[in-house]
Order: sequence, then C-alpha cells, then structure tokens
Amino acid sequence: MSSLHTTVKAMVFDTFGSVVDWRGSIVRDLTRWGNENGFQADWTVFAEQWRSMYQPSMEACRSGKREFTVLDVLHRESLDVLIEQYGLSKMTEAQREHVNKVWHRLDGWPDSVGGLTRLKSKYIIAPLSNGNISLLTDIAKYTGLPWDLNLSTEVFRCYKPQPESYLGVCHALRLDPSEVMMCAAHNNDLLAAKNCGLKTAFWPRPTEYGPTQTDNLVATEAWDVVAKDIRDLASQMGV
Amino acid sequence: MSSLHTTVKAMVFDTFGSVVDWRGSIVRDLTRWGNENGFQADWTVFAEQWRSMYQPSMEACRSGKREFTVLDVLHRESLDVLIEQYGLSKMTEAQREHVNKVWHRLDGWPDSVGGLTRLKSKYIIAPLSNGNISLLTDIAKYTGLPWDLNLSTEVFRCYKPQPESYLGVCHALRLDPSEVMMCAAHNNDLLAAKNCGLKTAFWPRPTEYGPTQTDNLVATEAWDVVAKDIRDLASQMGV
Repeated sequence: MSSLHTTVKAMVFDTFGSVVDWRGSIVRDLTRWGNENGFQADWTVFAEQWRSMYQPSMEACRSGKREFTVLDVLHRESLDVLIEQYGLSKMTEAQREHVNKVWHRLDGWPDSVGGLTRLKSKYIIAPLSNGNISLLTDIAKYTGLPWDLNLSTEVFRCYKPQPESYLGVCHALRLDPSEVMMCAAHNNDLLAAKNCGLKTAFWPRPTEYGPTQTDNLVATEAWDVVAKDIRDLASQMGV
Repeated sequence: MSSLHTTVKAMVFDTFGSVVDWRGSIVRDLTRWGNENGFQADWTVFAEQWRSMYQPSMEACRSGKREFTVLDVLHRESLDVLIEQYGLSKMTEAQREHVNKVWHRLDGWPDSVGGLTRLKSKYIIAPLSNGNISLLTDIAKYTGLPWDLNLSTEVFRCYKPQPESYLGVCHALRLDPSEVMMCAAHNNDLLAAKNCGLKTAFWPRPTEYGPTQTDNLVATEAWDVVAKDIRDLASQMGV
C-alpha cells in the first residue's frame, strides 16, 4: 500500500451514488416540495425511474446518434416524459426547472465530506462525473464537497465509461495514468479506468438503489484499494 | 450596487497579477533556489523578461499560427531561451522542470484568500485564467485559494482575451453573461469581458510589475465595481 501513497498524485471520484446519495436526496426533496406545491406521487419510484433513464440518454451521445449534450438537458428530457406518465402535467415551466435542478441539491453520504477533506491534505481531489460543470459546482457548494477542481466529463465532451474521460483527466492534470486513482462505488467504472492504466479504489454503497440492491455490493476485481467508505479510503491512503 | 448582489451568480477572476503576485513569488523562489543550487542571475530581471514572453507566445495560438498549446509548454519554451541568454545552460532537465514549475508556486496577495473566502459564501468563484488546469490547481493548493471550480481557458482551448473564453465560462455555468462578473486588475481583460456582456470589477495591483509600473494603476472605464483590493470587492458585493 505504501508505494501507492507516493505514486498517486490525484484521486478522482465518481459522484452520483459514490459520493452523494441521489436517491435519498431526491426522495426527501421532492416529497417536501410536492407537499408544499400540491403534487402527489410515489417519489421513490419516480426517482428510481428517472435514474433508469440516465444510461440510455447518455448512450445516444456515446454512440454518436446525437451530439454531446450536457446532463442537465438529458435529465430535463427524461423528466418531461415522467411528468406525463405521472399525470403531473399542470407543472409550470418554472416548477419543472426547479424539479430538474434537484440533481444540483444532492446530499453527501455521511462519510463523504470528512473523508475527502482528509484526502485533500495530500492528494489533488476532483469529481470525474458525468454530471455537467454547473451541476457538479452546485452539488459541491450545496453539500460542502471540498474539491480542488471540477473535472466533469463535459470538459472532454464525452461520457464515462468512454476512455477519453479517464485519459482526458490525466492529460489535463499532466499526470501519467498510473499517478491518477479512479475512486468509485461502481465496479464497471473502475474497470474502464483500469483499462486506461489508472489506479482504482472501491467502496460499496449498498443502499444506493434502496434496500433491495443486488449490484456493486462487493468488489468484483482486485482493485488497488477496497475500502469500507471514503473515511476508510483516507486511512488506507495514509491520511 | 444592490441590484448587482442579486443579478451576479458567479465571479470569475484573472489570476496572474490580480490574485497572485507572480513577480515577487518568482524572485523569492528562484533567489533561494539559485543560492542552494549554484545558479546566479538577476532573478528580478529574469522574471520580468520571462513574463514579457507570455503574450507573444500565446499570440501564436490565438492567431492560429500554431494549435492550442498549454501555458506550461509555452513557459518552458520561453525558459529554455532565457537559460541560454543567461548562460545557465548547465541546468539539468530536472532542474529546468523545477524552475518552470515556479509558476505553480505563486503566493496570493495579502487580501486574496480572505476576500475570496468571503465572496465564496454568496457567489460561485473560479479563476478564469490563461494558466492551464494543472497550473491553476497547483497554485490553488499551494496558496490556499478556495475556488469552487477551475475555469482555465484550457477548457475552452483558447486564450483570453478571445471571446470564446468569456462566453465559454458562461455556457459552462449555464448562466447568462449578465450573471457573471469578470474580476481583474487589468483593464484590457475587463474590456474584452464587457464586450461579451459580462459584469466587471477592477482593483489595482500597482506593484505587479514592480515599483515603476505605469499601466493599470487606475480604472480606465466605469466598471461595475472599482475596488481597492479583493477584500474591498467582497464588501462592495455585500459579503
């Protein structure tokens, strides 16, 4: 482990699910907002359905079927579909924008701010997320994530797991891939990063998708670090 | 003034000279390093000459004569020329890289960290600098600048005062130009930003180029805010 402490210069983090609790945050936010504004729905199912449209919407960009489009716009397109499905079409434009921006108001998991603050004392830390620049900026301010810089895949005009995102971050930081560690609660993200030569760190978020989650409960490969959470990752990285 | 407090959502800062003291920092750093490593030069003149090569080197990229090249590389090309001029050619490759990275080790002016910290409580704050991503990241960590995100012109693959840099930052933040304030100690930077529709704030750095500086001692236009320094800017922006 100790050689990792000197080799790794930057640690980049998947954000949705790994650092912030999108599902719990959205359910809390929209339940309160719905009650105050007269919109009723099963917001848990609503949040999960919204998230299930995430990969297909990005896939259109990844495959070249449409040009690169930021996540705020993809989220809004999916939201408009859901609003029809849920019979919520009396929602005004301003209300739709407010609801769409719930993705800018996500809470960190309890260990995120503390763990990242420790890691920042020794390493460059940044999100490497498919969230767009504005979205990641707002989340960081909202929940207090102490990033050194903001490495949205928007900078590289692609979406993870496209190699350009992992290699783009190394290029921007002027580091060799072996000096950059991809950190995530998702094995597939880490595999794509590893294939680009990055170091990898995993910790599980067993309730990211709720109590019946079956994926990503454990590390499926021998990642460079397997931790309990971001606090434990900080300890294993020597800070 | 109070309408500015509600209109402006993000404040972006020129960095070299406006937020950090490149000249004083380089002189201090290279004087110490030169003494320790047996290299003698008038480091004040050396620093000023190095900086004088900055605009011409970027102009080659702006004019399209060469493709976009990050500032670290431009700095290194200029440094190699200076090393010959100063008869310092026994400098090893590792020493040249260390000296080139002096631009990553710049101190803030005394009011910078305090003023920015206050502004961050209400506004999104970021550098909008011709320094590359890695350089700006290192400066922020070195001197403790509390940026929300890192908006190097490298993201937009251009150099200020090209309009793509000012408009690029508004686009990335999903804000109208009127909601973004360009903040600098250089009137020409502000003029280019104003021509793109951004708000503007000026404060002087009367010794950026040393005690005989004649440029940028005062505001040459009626910028939205004219302040004494970044602390005073924070006061005028209501924080």
